[in-house]
Amino acid sequence: MTGQVFWSEVIGSALLILLGAGVVANVILPKTKGFAGGWLLINFGWGLAVFTGVYAAWKSGAHLNPAVTVGIWASGADTYGGSANLTVTFGHTLVYFAGEFIGAVLAFLAYKKHFDQDADPAVKLGVFSTGPELRSYAWNFITEVIGTFVLVYWVVVSGVKENSSGLGALGVALVVVGIGASLGGPTGYAINPTRDLAPRIAHALLPIKGKGSSDWSYAWVPVLGPLVGGVLAGLLSQATI
Amino acid sequence: MTGQVFWSEVIGSALLILLGAGVVANVILPKTKGFAGGWLLINFGWGLAVFTGVYAAWKSGAHLNPAVTVGIWASGADTYGGSANLTVTFGHTLVYFAGEFIGAVLAFLAYKKHFDQDADPAVKLGVFSTGPELRSYAWNFITEVIGTFVLVYWVVVSGVKENSSGLGALGVALVVVGIGASLGGPTGYAINPTRDLAPRIAHALLPIKGKGSSDWSYAWVPVLGPLVGGVLAGLLSQATI
Amino acid sequence: MTGQVFWSEVIGSALLILLGAGVVANVILPKTKGFAGGWLLINFGWGLAVFTGVYAAWKSGAHLNPAVTVGIWASGADTYGGSANLTVTFGHTLVYFAGEFIGAVLAFLAYKKHFDQDADPAVKLGVFSTGPELRSYAWNFITEVIGTFVLVYWVVVSGVKENSSGLGALGVALVVVGIGASLGGPTGYAINPTRDLAPRIAHALLPIKGKGSSDWSYAWVPVLGPLVGGVLAGLLSQATI
Amino acid sequence: MTGQVFWSEVIGSALLILLGAGVVANVILPKTKGFAGGWLLINFGWGLAVFTGVYAAWKSGAHLNPAVTVGIWASGADTYGGSANLTVTFGHTLVYFAGEFIGAVLAFLAYKKHFDQDADPAVKLGVFSTGPELRSYAWNFITEVIGTFVLVYWVVVSGVKENSSGLGALGVALVVVGIGASLGGPTGYAINPTRDLAPRIAHALLPIKGKGSSDWSYAWVPVLGPLVGGVLAGLLSQATI
Repeated sequence: MTGQVFWSEVIGSALLILLGAGVVANVILPKTKGFAGGWLLINFGWGLAVFTGVYAAWKSGAHLNPAVTVGIWASGADTYGGSANLTVTFGHTLVYFAGEFIGAVLAFLAYKKHFDQDADPAVKLGVFSTGPELRSYAWNFITEVIGTFVLVYWVVVSGVKENSSGLGALGVALVVVGIGASLGGPTGYAINPTRDLAPRIAHALLPIKGKGSSDWSYAWVPVLGPLVGGVLAGLLSQATI
Repeated sequence: MTGQVFWSEVIGSALLILLGAGVVANVILPKTKGFAGGWLLINFGWGLAVFTGVYAAWKSGAHLNPAVTVGIWASGADTYGGSANLTVTFGHTLVYFAGEFIGAVLAFLAYKKHFDQDADPAVKLGVFSTGPELRSYAWNFITEVIGTFVLVYWVVVSGVKENSSGLGALGVALVVVGIGASLGGPTGYAINPTRDLAPRIAHALLPIKGKGSSDWSYAWVPVLGPLVGGVLAGLLSQATI
Repeated sequence: MTGQVFWSEVIGSALLILLGAGVVANVILPKTKGFAGGWLLINFGWGLAVFTGVYAAWKSGAHLNPAVTVGIWASGADTYGGSANLTVTFGHTLVYFAGEFIGAVLAFLAYKKHFDQDADPAVKLGVFSTGPELRSYAWNFITEVIGTFVLVYWVVVSGVKENSSGLGALGVALVVVGIGASLGGPTGYAINPTRDLAPRIAHALLPIKGKGSSDWSYAWVPVLGPLVGGVLAGLLSQATI
Repeated sequence: MTGQVFWSEVIGSALLILLGAGVVANVILPKTKGFAGGWLLINFGWGLAVFTGVYAAWKSGAHLNPAVTVGIWASGADTYGGSANLTVTFGHTLVYFAGEFIGAVLAFLAYKKHFDQDADPAVKLGVFSTGPELRSYAWNFITEVIGTFVLVYWVVVSGVKENSSGLGALGVALVVVGIGASLGGPTGYAINPTRDLAPRIAHALLPIKGKGSSDWSYAWVPVLGPLVGGVLAGLLSQATI
């Protein structure tokens, strides 16, 4: 991993979480200009967070998501220039993790005065990490598997045909808008293990006024669900490409 | 039909209905994050369902809609590599049907805990199939004819000029967003016979808590209307291409 | 004008008004699925109406708007293959007029059962034609001049640089979304003389239940304002291209 | 600077503010068609204002934002054809300033009858310039630094890779939609020094009925914050390109 790739991935994943956590803060924290701005606003905010982050991380292939990495690995396609062994993958994941932590801190700083307002502790956690509307570990897990399957299957298939369609970062951003609109209703669509875990750790460590639990009992769902969904998508893609 | 084409069409049409039924579930089922999220959210959800499904089914030409198939046939253009006879068309339709049934089951699983909540049985059916706001078989039929005409006419004309414009899957997705926004108000824009019928059968078969009628008396409207609209679009396109 | 160009323009302008009037019907007529769906829904509906109509009319250059024609004429650029004299322009305008009238009739048919509901006569007119929120012929005229200036200036300038950017129909659709969002607040953004006048005549002629006045005293504003805005844009573009 | 570049920049920056101030007027001034249309409407309005303005100013490189100019300068890349010294930059900034002032006047004229209505003076100022929801010069400054960092970092990085992605004006418009959705909640995202200052001066000078203070005590925040964010983005980009 060159220094350019390293910094591309750090900044790309920081932008992903800065904009992703930012739009949720704008919609749910008190006294923002986007307060109660609706689910479509959150969907576009997250989709364009992906658009911005993927552009910034283009030097590295721009997975920004270990579920994508394991999916491409399961599909049998080359990735990271053909060197996608476990050590390399783990290294990239650590880099994403660091960048996403930084992004969560920046989102906290951008909305600092709004975090200082009185609000339900669950709302303040909701800026950082996903949580279910109706808690059921088994069904929440299934929802995350299905949502991530859609994302990773699309990435694998569109990567193969990219030369003829060429929408690049815009395509994956639109798919993320679609997954949020369609499959985000029950759990808030983590569809990415580190996207949920890194900001949850930031929530635990940051001096957020009036914060509550970081809800660790749920934290495994948005980590394991996306990994399983990504592997399933990679395996199934072998039937079509 | 090769195995790759078969699986491309199964998965593409499954993704179409998974995301399409999913966004409706998110907006109308109780206690979702997107509850009451508005008509534009539904329009973007369905448009991006088309975007995702068409990408996934690119190996086959990606009609995902028998109204498109009959429209291209009526236009006199070649389709399915020049082999669009009735047997081939019927075969593709069966494959779409299977994929769309699977997509409806997956949407049910993703929103299982929300289907378990108390809600009007018509709401639970509405996730799967379309229904009119003001029931009038004749006028509802006309609305579906007009909506499908727009879709199929655009597909036929843009297919001819694709080399110079090249938006591909994004173009048809945007047209579907537009048809939903503009012509979905009376009947919910099936504009695709199997998109409505396959999930309706899934509704009839699935163990949905508190479900009611599958409204079979209306089921012919979103099947025949789109087929008639597609044929009219294909015939009229002969005047311009 | 060949038969292909003639029919391209008839169908393109019919689709423009069908989808444009349709989205307004969906948002303001009683008991539709999109009722009270918001201004952004209307903006996207109209923008995608332009997207769809321009694609369908590509054989002819796809102005679909006499304000664009006079703007290109005022800019000194060639149009209609270099033959943009007054007779040719008048011919194309008549064709748009016919297509837009047909589009208005189709929108009426698609929403027939909703037009049959009780509603303020001004609401029923609003599906077809624009009207001001605060009536002031002078200021309403200025607003239409400014909105059309933006559209025509963009079309003229982007036409010159099209080879390097290439968004085509999508670009003009996005600009129309933007003009609606930003400048549609006072008068409802006709920004096209025939787009307003042809549906107004349809409103006067169609057997709409409970309809009121077609508001002819305002009808000159959305005709003259766009023509003046288009000419100003064409003249000013000469300073930059 | 040729006459063509001069006029491109004047008109491009006028369109930027005309559409940007226009969408805010539509959402917050009384009796408009877009009144209370929501934050996403404002985000799309501003994003498409950038899309339209950048197209119109393509002759000059289309920064339309001194924060972008200083960011590119800090990145070490060439700009304005390699001649980005302080004098040239200052010259372009003056031209943007003039264009943006004109845009603010045009937005005032387009919404003149709505400005004449009774409304909180802060609402009338809000059409022209940004203001914080929770006033804290230090934190508001930080929010503007972060938001502008995202914009300028994206512009610098995407400029380098433009040949392979090619979304051009659409890409930057989407990033501006995303920044508004995600980081506009606390301060209203100036992310551009002249975009805020030129319309504020227009507010001070124009004969707006019932206007109040132009809030000069806040005016330095949306000027200095974007300049600092732009420089930081340029410097950090050196690690990745």
